[in-house]
Amino acid sequence: MDFRIEKDTMGEVKVPSDKLWGAQTERSRNNFKIGAPASMPLEIIYGFAYLKKSAAFTNCELGVLPIEKRDLIAQVCDEILEGKHDDQFPLVIWQTGSGTQSNMNVNEVIANRAHQLAGKTIGEGEKTLQPNDDVNKSQSSNDTFPTGMHIAAYKKLVEVTIPGVTQLRDTLKKKSEDFKKVVKIGRTHFMDATPLTIGQELSGYVSQLDHGLKALENTLPHMAEIALGGTAVGTGLNTPKGYAKRVSEFIAQFTGLPFITAENKFEALAAHDAFVETHGALKQLAVALNKIGNDIRMLASGPRSGIGELIIPANEPGSSIMPGKVNPTQCEALTMVCAQVLGNDVAIGVGGMQGHFELNVFKPVMAASLLQSAQLIGDACVSFDEHCAQGIEPNQARITELLNNSLMLVTALNTKIGYYKAAEIANTAHENGTTLKHEAVALGYVTEEEFDQWVRPENMVGELK
Amino acid sequence: MDFRIEKDTMGEVKVPSDKLWGAQTERSRNNFKIGAPASMPLEIIYGFAYLKKSAAFTNCELGVLPIEKRDLIAQVCDEILEGKHDDQFPLVIWQTGSGTQSNMNVNEVIANRAHQLAGKTIGEGEKTLQPNDDVNKSQSSNDTFPTGMHIAAYKKLVEVTIPGVTQLRDTLKKKSEDFKKVVKIGRTHFMDATPLTIGQELSGYVSQLDHGLKALENTLPHMAEIALGGTAVGTGLNTPKGYAKRVSEFIAQFTGLPFITAENKFEALAAHDAFVETHGALKQLAVALNKIGNDIRMLASGPRSGIGELIIPANEPGSSIMPGKVNPTQCEALTMVCAQVLGNDVAIGVGGMQGHFELNVFKPVMAASLLQSAQLIGDACVSFDEHCAQGIEPNQARITELLNNSLMLVTALNTKIGYYKAAEIANTAHENGTTLKHEAVALGYVTEEEFDQWVRPENMVGELK
Amino acid sequence: MDFRIEKDTMGEVKVPSDKLWGAQTERSRNNFKIGAPASMPLEIIYGFAYLKKSAAFTNCELGVLPIEKRDLIAQVCDEILEGKHDDQFPLVIWQTGSGTQSNMNVNEVIANRAHQLAGKTIGEGEKTLQPNDDVNKSQSSNDTFPTGMHIAAYKKLVEVTIPGVTQLRDTLKKKSEDFKKVVKIGRTHFMDATPLTIGQELSGYVSQLDHGLKALENTLPHMAEIALGGTAVGTGLNTPKGYAKRVSEFIAQFTGLPFITAENKFEALAAHDAFVETHGALKQLAVALNKIGNDIRMLASGPRSGIGELIIPANEPGSSIMPGKVNPTQCEALTMVCAQVLGNDVAIGVGGMQGHFELNVFKPVMAASLLQSAQLIGDACVSFDEHCAQGIEPNQARITELLNNSLMLVTALNTKIGYYKAAEIANTAHENGTTLKHEAVALGYVTEEEFDQWVRPENMVGELK
Amino acid sequence: MDFRIEKDTMGEVKVPSDKLWGAQTERSRNNFKIGAPASMPLEIIYGFAYLKKSAAFTNCELGVLPIEKRDLIAQVCDEILEGKHDDQFPLVIWQTGSGTQSNMNVNEVIANRAHQLAGKTIGEGEKTLQPNDDVNKSQSSNDTFPTGMHIAAYKKLVEVTIPGVTQLRDTLKKKSEDFKKVVKIGRTHFMDATPLTIGQELSGYVSQLDHGLKALENTLPHMAEIALGGTAVGTGLNTPKGYAKRVSEFIAQFTGLPFITAENKFEALAAHDAFVETHGALKQLAVALNKIGNDIRMLASGPRSGIGELIIPANEPGSSIMPGKVNPTQCEALTMVCAQVLGNDVAIGVGGMQGHFELNVFKPVMAASLLQSAQLIGDACVSFDEHCAQGIEPNQARITELLNNSLMLVTALNTKIGYYKAAEIANTAHENGTTLKHEAVALGYVTEEEFDQWVRPENMVGELK
Repeated sequence: MDFRIEKDTMGEVKVPSDKLWGAQTERSRNNFKIGAPASMPLEIIYGFAYLKKSAAFTNCELGVLPIEKRDLIAQVCDEILEGKHDDQFPLVIWQTGSGTQSNMNVNEVIANRAHQLAGKTIGEGEKTLQPNDDVNKSQSSNDTFPTGMHIAAYKKLVEVTIPGVTQLRDTLKKKSEDFKKVVKIGRTHFMDATPLTIGQELSGYVSQLDHGLKALENTLPHMAEIALGGTAVGTGLNTPKGYAKRVSEFIAQFTGLPFITAENKFEALAAHDAFVETHGALKQLAVALNKIGNDIRMLASGPRSGIGELIIPANEPGSSIMPGKVNPTQCEALTMVCAQVLGNDVAIGVGGMQGHFELNVFKPVMAASLLQSAQLIGDACVSFDEHCAQGIEPNQARITELLNNSLMLVTALNTKIGYYKAAEIANTAHENGTTLKHEAVALGYVTEEEFDQWVRPENMVGELK
Repeated sequence: MDFRIEKDTMGEVKVPSDKLWGAQTERSRNNFKIGAPASMPLEIIYGFAYLKKSAAFTNCELGVLPIEKRDLIAQVCDEILEGKHDDQFPLVIWQTGSGTQSNMNVNEVIANRAHQLAGKTIGEGEKTLQPNDDVNKSQSSNDTFPTGMHIAAYKKLVEVTIPGVTQLRDTLKKKSEDFKKVVKIGRTHFMDATPLTIGQELSGYVSQLDHGLKALENTLPHMAEIALGGTAVGTGLNTPKGYAKRVSEFIAQFTGLPFITAENKFEALAAHDAFVETHGALKQLAVALNKIGNDIRMLASGPRSGIGELIIPANEPGSSIMPGKVNPTQCEALTMVCAQVLGNDVAIGVGGMQGHFELNVFKPVMAASLLQSAQLIGDACVSFDEHCAQGIEPNQARITELLNNSLMLVTALNTKIGYYKAAEIANTAHENGTTLKHEAVALGYVTEEEFDQWVRPENMVGELK
Repeated sequence: MDFRIEKDTMGEVKVPSDKLWGAQTERSRNNFKIGAPASMPLEIIYGFAYLKKSAAFTNCELGVLPIEKRDLIAQVCDEILEGKHDDQFPLVIWQTGSGTQSNMNVNEVIANRAHQLAGKTIGEGEKTLQPNDDVNKSQSSNDTFPTGMHIAAYKKLVEVTIPGVTQLRDTLKKKSEDFKKVVKIGRTHFMDATPLTIGQELSGYVSQLDHGLKALENTLPHMAEIALGGTAVGTGLNTPKGYAKRVSEFIAQFTGLPFITAENKFEALAAHDAFVETHGALKQLAVALNKIGNDIRMLASGPRSGIGELIIPANEPGSSIMPGKVNPTQCEALTMVCAQVLGNDVAIGVGGMQGHFELNVFKPVMAASLLQSAQLIGDACVSFDEHCAQGIEPNQARITELLNNSLMLVTALNTKIGYYKAAEIANTAHENGTTLKHEAVALGYVTEEEFDQWVRPENMVGELK
Repeated sequence: MDFRIEKDTMGEVKVPSDKLWGAQTERSRNNFKIGAPASMPLEIIYGFAYLKKSAAFTNCELGVLPIEKRDLIAQVCDEILEGKHDDQFPLVIWQTGSGTQSNMNVNEVIANRAHQLAGKTIGEGEKTLQPNDDVNKSQSSNDTFPTGMHIAAYKKLVEVTIPGVTQLRDTLKKKSEDFKKVVKIGRTHFMDATPLTIGQELSGYVSQLDHGLKALENTLPHMAEIALGGTAVGTGLNTPKGYAKRVSEFIAQFTGLPFITAENKFEALAAHDAFVETHGALKQLAVALNKIGNDIRMLASGPRSGIGELIIPANEPGSSIMPGKVNPTQCEALTMVCAQVLGNDVAIGVGGMQGHFELNVFKPVMAASLLQSAQLIGDACVSFDEHCAQGIEPNQARITELLNNSLMLVTALNTKIGYYKAAEIANTAHENGTTLKHEAVALGYVTEEEFDQWVRPENMVGELK
């Protein structure tokens, strides 16, 4: 392989000659062979592209960077955002915990690519841009990496997570209305209980998702606070006056998202409670989705030896050995995602709690875990929606059969004959394998007419909205 | 021991004659010998007292309970809230997951105590109140237990957690202002970095707690939603018209807290995402407090071989073998609490995700875990505040010594002579064990005068607010 | 209240005159008002009693403690182990993370009680025993507290956890044999699958518990290693020669358990990986028990609208509103315990990972969490065994009905006519609501005789052991 | 793009014509667009290759598969193991929870590639091998996927994790011996304590890793148990007699690892406690490694304002803004890995606890999480070893300075003058900022000669081994 020589403050390093990165990236690549290469999420690199461009515009506006350099930086950032340099970011999550090396990776790629754009050959002649002095001007890894994290996370939440969950929520809402009059047996403790409608049952899921989305949205203002302008320890050393506010405005402008400068930069570097907070809401959604996925697969269980009240789409052959088997595979993918999200929540908490002094050095793992959860929840909701939820149908025959058999309809008699006599009816019917009506009349507590009038499932489900 | 006979729908049970509880409580006591007795938190019992009284008032107002019964129920509830019957609730967390048995414990105690208040002897004569038909009227365990959980949790949060955290926050804020001009060396990656003030450092903690409190407050509206009125499966079966809204108003009135009826009762029984949500915020606070506790003990480390920049109060002898040792014990209690809160967060998530159909049956463990976290965070913050934070003082001599020695002051030269030359100065001084100034001048990059003018720690900490 | 004056190296403290504890206990009581009082588990105090007695015997044998002092110490320790002084240990888990204050609590109680036993009045005359110089001789909190933790944990595991799990395992094993010939439909993905016997199904649970018990036993040798003899930092400073080994022998003798001195005392103070390791096995058991509890409640679901293949005991009325309802309450208690154990596992991991230098200061929370899990698992298994597992019976009529209906019996035809044709039969029967046999013959793939010969559930369950 | 038509029991599917996979793979690819493509770990695919080859050999030997088919299957499996078909496995973790679709992906690729090897064109002519009837013969997804998981995990543990941890352990052991006589101040509660040697300090880490490795090895026998032979529900339906044992022998032979057939196949399909168990040990290692990484970065903190007792290698420039800064980056990567492992432990526990009836459908997430943890721990240990641990050196000047200053040397006087007088000396020296010796003599408790004889750090560290 061909190499060229790149330098940093520690000396010379050989870099593959077809790569845009420089000495520090190459050092990191060699020093951190942990897990698969290039595991640092591209979303964070894109976050950096927004912020580097914004920093260049701010530096220029505040008089510390020439307009030519600004434009070169911006041009490369735009190329990065177009996905043209995705293979120039080979570093891993498991590097320095400040993400310094990924910051330098971006600085080096921008500087070298700018050199090319200026018509020169990398490694030859004076550098068109200095990675540290120009591209990283008015910045530190300590404020850029968290800024990149916040941009990446916010975008993922509003572009993937929230739309995905909302899409599923809307389908469940529609199904809830479609089946608002389908009365079925309720189940508590896995045991037969008083009836409700499918619409009501589904409305509970909708309400869970609504609460979850609300919780997630509550966290966005914290996530919108960015660290840029804090530089090394939060004091803003080496930034021109007005920089922090202005650079956040550029970031807001370029991303179209409501980023603002963090009121307290010391927190913004030393703690990532915003990630803990947002992931708490993602975990809440996972808890809700696990419940929904579980319920639906249990309600659709069968086809002959389960509950079988719902019919869900058959998307693929279910078994490599049992012919004709159709499985609730979307529920399974969804609940596996939920398990991972619960795990990621701990990873993020453990990372978040171990910041020390002026810097938390668990940034990459916190960022990568949150981005994974946000992506998986969004994708899994869309997949579950399109391949399962939209196709849910009630199995009316089965629903009616189970409803009419139920002993829990006796509850309707509580207010007529009291809890104790009602219990006696239910227990007797259960022991004798008979119907409630039979025993209610036999025990002499009600007449047939009373029974028929009082024990009506459709009257036991409350007002339907 | 003396016994009396109590009955339920399954038959007779012997109950200690000096106890107010009845058959179902006694069954549970015998069937669930898991962990220490009476582990069900009293706060939940008190929550039940509020709701039983409110239900009685509502039932009476809506014409389904005589005023004499209402007043008897209310009178016993008031006694419970005064703590007069704390020893009448012997059940454990590890019972039925709906908390049915604790609901019945409350119903039975109210009924039997009312019998006494009516001048009768328990077990003799017709019952003054029926536990199920009167005390539990228009209710089910499935909506009362979550209501009791929400009341207990909300009260704990506003009475213990938020005041406790706020008290510590206010002290840190005051200290932050007291020491706003004390310039010290910053530390990132545990390594010397550019300077900041103690005030700035503490302001980061204040900001973390402010964000944490905000996050916690964001969860309160969900916690204020109560399930009562949903009865068995959420449909409100066997409740009079208007019950759910009216009972929530009584609860709000009696507790003085903004409880409202849950818009969706199906969710309110089948899922406890409100607990997952609120505990997520408690976990966020734990993450913040762990950072704060860690930082303070490290900054106070020594007295001679640590960092020693802060002086914290010596509250007790620190060692049973090393005389004269004083330890950061409040930091340790605080961070141990944080570890437990992170654990409880998983317990609550695991419980929350496993609701099935119309009911989540992990209610007691979710409630007990959240109450524990809420209490511990509140108490630990107060303890940490009173026995540590209020007494924090800077060790000025040590701070000055470390600041003046630091090589990272070189960062101030970046914008004057560039990153690479600045690095050379720092590296040379590090290797030679000399000062920055010495090497800066020796290398010919700056004059003594320039150095003195440019490298001033007090100018490196930004604008002080 | 009456007080007496006690002293420590920091000065005088008022202590309630009817209490045996001294100054340092009282300071801790006042400085750590976090959660309920006296939360430090008594099991740890008892662990201390064993070790204080053992230390006294060793010190005496090695010539550094007079025999009179040894015997006084031993006498008080025996009283503590008889439960006579349970109310003399008022401290909380949330104290100093080394447990120093509980060590001093024990030292002070022993010293003061010995004073009484010597016929004197506490607070008068020269102390018969010095808490630090005599009772704590050759010890430090840093090695006594972990020793107390290990003794407490080991005892709990062998006295409560392992017997409890084993009792349940043995019942499941017996049931597995009782029902070894009861063929039923299998379920995978909640969907009907090929048949197996109840005996086979239960044998899987037995195997899980066997593996879990084996895993737990694998951790005992690490738990048997005790820190005593390491004193302050692991070097054994201020211990007589041969002390560490000899004191572990006394502990082994007094407890009847195979404790040995830890080979490496530095680890034994600075890390509690033995707790992480053992709790990992408890978590494994919780994972297994959650599966077992879930399965059994789903298999027993109904009575009319669920699966209903198993009948479990009805121990109590199940619902305060739905008469005649019987719920799988033991399954619920068991699975709630599992949720807490999963949470405790994180608390212990978070505590265990944050030891610093020569000492881990998350000892009390790690110890209390593990003791809670060990107790809950043992108790819950016994409760589940006695009130549920022992009473499990197959519902033969329901089992037969579901088995005969199943479409998955078609799998038996795979090796005769191939997977694709078998699938076609199953799909057709499913669509038409007919039987496999009908469609198999109608499609011309098999004759009636072949079907009857090839598709026999009892031949599809393999060899029965 | 060019397509060909593939078929399964549900009908026709278009597949890219340059791909070897078939209908079911393509369905899954379209139905599960969750996260990045091809996230199913290749290690699991390789595990499948071993087992498909072993199944073919067993089927052939037992007379149910012709030798020509056996050899074709084996040939493709060998190609897969050589990495020739890595791009033929496009499925994601987040598919059906039984991994059925990845099993079919392997079956389809083997069948189509065998068709090519037989000189034919995919999609033309009769299939040389049937994916279900030949490649999957005597198998089900339900026993193959867990077998693939176990093979992948076992290999990763013995090839990556254990060697990686052992390499670091050996370096720490060597360093422990190299520095066995370097006496330094100890630290407990972050506070100065009695001295020990660096060798002793490091020996604690070695002991932690030894215990962790032992714990991990304890789990291997459970991991060595494989499910193959259980087929759909554990009964072994459709397998020839003797199959389960024989196929495990082939797997052991082909992998060179001690796999055996699981004694209980019902557990082996329905629960993955072996993964919970093994990951518990990985978590224990993570807890230990986090402690080690933390300690080393704190001991190396500085260069001028920290502890600075250790010197660690400078591998890269540490800061993009602070010139000359060198950071403990390997410690950071290592501890970030630990955070992720703690998270994965929860994901695996949550997945493991939710198996239902005859199948756990959280297999892919459990497998992927464990493989990630096993890889990361192994890699991070090697990286930490090569780029940090091997280069650790004591900073002798600093160590001596801190040791001589310490007040905790006073502990050596406990056994001479008692704890209380020793404490008085230490407290006085602390208040006056003087030396212990000065105050000890001034207070009249010892002579200078006694002090010099009694207070010798090198005598306070115990016997050095």
